[in-house]
Amino acid sequence: MSLRIDILTLFPRMLDGFLAESILGKAIARDLLQVQVRDLRDWCTDKHRTADDRPFGGGAGMILKPEPTIAAIEAVQSPGCQRIYLTPDGEPFGEAMAREFAAADHLVFLSGHYEGIDQRIRDSVIDREVSIGDYVLTNGTLPAAVVVDAVARFIPGVLGDEKSLTHESFTGKLLDFPQYTRPAEFRGMSVPDVLLTGNHGEIERWRQAQRIEKTRQVRPDLFQKYRHESDHQ
Amino acid sequence: MSLRIDILTLFPRMLDGFLAESILGKAIARDLLQVQVRDLRDWCTDKHRTADDRPFGGGAGMILKPEPTIAAIEAVQSPGCQRIYLTPDGEPFGEAMAREFAAADHLVFLSGHYEGIDQRIRDSVIDREVSIGDYVLTNGTLPAAVVVDAVARFIPGVLGDEKSLTHESFTGKLLDFPQYTRPAEFRGMSVPDVLLTGNHGEIERWRQAQRIEKTRQVRPDLFQKYRHESDHQ
Repeated sequence: MSLRIDILTLFPRMLDGFLAESILGKAIARDLLQVQVRDLRDWCTDKHRTADDRPFGGGAGMILKPEPTIAAIEAVQSPGCQRIYLTPDGEPFGEAMAREFAAADHLVFLSGHYEGIDQRIRDSVIDREVSIGDYVLTNGTLPAAVVVDAVARFIPGVLGDEKSLTHESFTGKLLDFPQYTRPAEFRGMSVPDVLLTGNHGEIERWRQAQRIEKTRQVRPDLFQKYRHESDHQ
Repeated sequence: MSLRIDILTLFPRMLDGFLAESILGKAIARDLLQVQVRDLRDWCTDKHRTADDRPFGGGAGMILKPEPTIAAIEAVQSPGCQRIYLTPDGEPFGEAMAREFAAADHLVFLSGHYEGIDQRIRDSVIDREVSIGDYVLTNGTLPAAVVVDAVARFIPGVLGDEKSLTHESFTGKLLDFPQYTRPAEFRGMSVPDVLLTGNHGEIERWRQAQRIEKTRQVRPDLFQKYRHESDHQ
């Protein structure tokens, strides 16, 4: 049974291109996962299909109303599914969570307004709050797409080349090494000699040294973690 | 003069929905920013329009070739523009960078393959490498959209309500407080009394206490930073 994903949003058309193109589009076409985008307004019961309202206690912007949003989630959820709200307030998304989601049967993503949603939605029909990064977007639909894309990579068959995934799954601990392809010389810029030697041990050592050096320079926070974990191995 | 953005990608159709819908679609329609998505293959000169090739030194996957990618960037760049490569190896994207990008005249985003791009592209035509988070995606097109969406919020006129932006710009330091809207009671769940008092001082204090408590629980890393900065004010 392939992973089933529902995305609830006020902007269902936003993901048309994303779902049709690229590796994800192919995976959906091959039925390796199913993604349905649902319009939250389909669960609004008033004439104007009002999904949002002003916050109690004052403040700018509009927030998602509890009734239609809760009704929407209750309509699409299934026993044992995970109901995920995308918000900069959430737990940071990463490779471990992507693997976990890829092993699920059914995920329901709620995309909120940038001003937020009624807290009672979070209290009653959300299992997990997830953030793709420390920045604010106009709504949670792109973040849902980001999570779906990262998750899809861990579904067997989605990437042609399983080895490629193994290599990259380390990205969270160390940054990647420099890559080169043909031509070996371009505008006076050459591929490092070691990569042309065919000596796999040498190449591996060079790549690892590059990864450590780049991580130390660009992401000292990851480097601390890496050193800490290396010390305990 | 409005901000001009070029996105170079192998999957130009991926962003069709994103550029037409939501707040960003409206901002583009109102000419508050201009976004052009370009197909990297338009700069491939061989019969098969080959944009990628196998890496020197071995390894799985395909990486972007230097010639067409460099030609594409050189064709769209302008004096003083920033050329940004989206990669999990990059500098973490956040609110400060979004503000900086919003003040630029011209941004060029390069979306790479998930396996990466030839290092000589990075060395010769990229000014900045940016990561939207510690996870790997199938390609950099969604990350480009995420950055554009976050940047657009800081362009005057894009959000209807300037005050809303001021409020949220703190999100990077403390998480948000719970929001509530009508009805005041729903399925036995009530809005906290303080929000119905009309006492703005009380409401502000309650919201701040909620933010501190949530940040302490969900994101101890941000809380450390917040405490550190508060100590120095």
